[in-house]
Amino acid sequence: MRHDDDLRVPVSGAQAGPGAVGGRSVTSKVLALLAAFSSESPELTLSELARIAGLTLPTAHRRAMELVQWGALERNPDGRFHIGLRLWEVASLAPRGLGLREAAMPFLEDLYEVTHENVQLAVREGLEVVYVERIAGRNAVPVLTRVGGRFALHATGVGLVLLAHAPAEIQEEILTTPLHGYSPKTVTSPVRLRQMLAATRRDGYAVSDGQVTVDALSVAAPILGPRGDVVAAVSLVVRADSAQPSALAPLVKTSARGISRTLNNRPL
Amino acid sequence: MRHDDDLRVPVSGAQAGPGAVGGRSVTSKVLALLAAFSSESPELTLSELARIAGLTLPTAHRRAMELVQWGALERNPDGRFHIGLRLWEVASLAPRGLGLREAAMPFLEDLYEVTHENVQLAVREGLEVVYVERIAGRNAVPVLTRVGGRFALHATGVGLVLLAHAPAEIQEEILTTPLHGYSPKTVTSPVRLRQMLAATRRDGYAVSDGQVTVDALSVAAPILGPRGDVVAAVSLVVRADSAQPSALAPLVKTSARGISRTLNNRPL
Repeated sequence: MRHDDDLRVPVSGAQAGPGAVGGRSVTSKVLALLAAFSSESPELTLSELARIAGLTLPTAHRRAMELVQWGALERNPDGRFHIGLRLWEVASLAPRGLGLREAAMPFLEDLYEVTHENVQLAVREGLEVVYVERIAGRNAVPVLTRVGGRFALHATGVGLVLLAHAPAEIQEEILTTPLHGYSPKTVTSPVRLRQMLAATRRDGYAVSDGQVTVDALSVAAPILGPRGDVVAAVSLVVRADSAQPSALAPLVKTSARGISRTLNNRPL
Repeated sequence: MRHDDDLRVPVSGAQAGPGAVGGRSVTSKVLALLAAFSSESPELTLSELARIAGLTLPTAHRRAMELVQWGALERNPDGRFHIGLRLWEVASLAPRGLGLREAAMPFLEDLYEVTHENVQLAVREGLEVVYVERIAGRNAVPVLTRVGGRFALHATGVGLVLLAHAPAEIQEEILTTPLHGYSPKTVTSPVRLRQMLAATRRDGYAVSDGQVTVDALSVAAPILGPRGDVVAAVSLVVRADSAQPSALAPLVKTSARGISRTLNNRPL
């Protein structure tokens, strides 16, 4: 979760203005309830919800019931809460979520039909990759990602593309923090990673060879937004032993160009 | 938007309890800001946002900036707001959204590969269909739907399946309200619609022949949840003149069974 430094938090709850009570705004409490859910815990009891959101039980109950009434949360027959369909409907309007996905989908389907391998579409959010779409071949190499899930920037193909084109301060933050090794082949040396990012910018694509799981190789290319900046990346993930990155790169780059063109004919 | 009948609205804003100010709770204001966005208006200026949400400009500004800070909203360079990626990430945990989609996707891909037609996955929300996934063939018949979009229950194939298995009070509400005709072939007679719903329950699939657009025919089948209730529907939408519903039905029913089986091996 982000910090709420900017919120005008009153010194005393008793004098709190509208929506800011007990040192924490109501908005932040409502958002904390939503943020309590995760892929590991998609269903929560009221007391779990209160604990994770850092709220008292009565406050959590009052806010959660408002969210249920609106449809942002739903309840199971056993009383546990989960994210509701109505929130999913509203969130489907996010341009970087389904907006990007709609523009990209025909090209992702083409990539999948031609290769029957894993096809992935991702954006950068802060220091991480967020996967927006994934078409997984039934017999394709297993991958760790999930739509709506996150991963480190320095290991995956899409991550390398997004990192290579990220603002300098993002690159420095990643390069000056210890890099986690997901497999024996993950590049954890900042010097070597810098070289890979330069190669990615020069070649117009990135290769992650066994750097997430040793048996998978990913080739990724950048998708450009209306202002010529890199807004997303598309990748093909194949079995490492069968892979010819130089043969896959033109395929992935062509897809990325098609998606960029489609995106820029309508508002991102 | 739903009504807030259940919310404990204070008589006077001055005595308002935490989060309920000026006759309307802060939670409901925050949710109204999110609900202001639609597929027709995915980007809004602050004044549009305030007007649609029914808030004053200062209130809309304060709440919107809290939402931006958390990532539920994002701003364009021109200052307009849109739904943020972080809300999309949280909402991707909705079991009836991406949870259902993840279980269904391999089966939807199989249906698409075999037919190269439109494949759709939908759930019922109140009196409407909500589309959770759609794979659209490049050369397939055009359809009106969009992921995250809504449609009437009485016209589409998935809608007929979901209506046929909806609670009696939902069926009565639909059948006693004038039925909108989307095409000359839309069934708008309650008597005829009742017969179609009975046939859908008897045969295990529904056919919508030109009832949304005259050139499209949809065959849909029910997906069952862990308690044996119908939780979703899958359909194949093909060109009406080329269609043989009796040949497509076994294909769609088999997919629906596969999805149901996958769903019920893990928590819905």
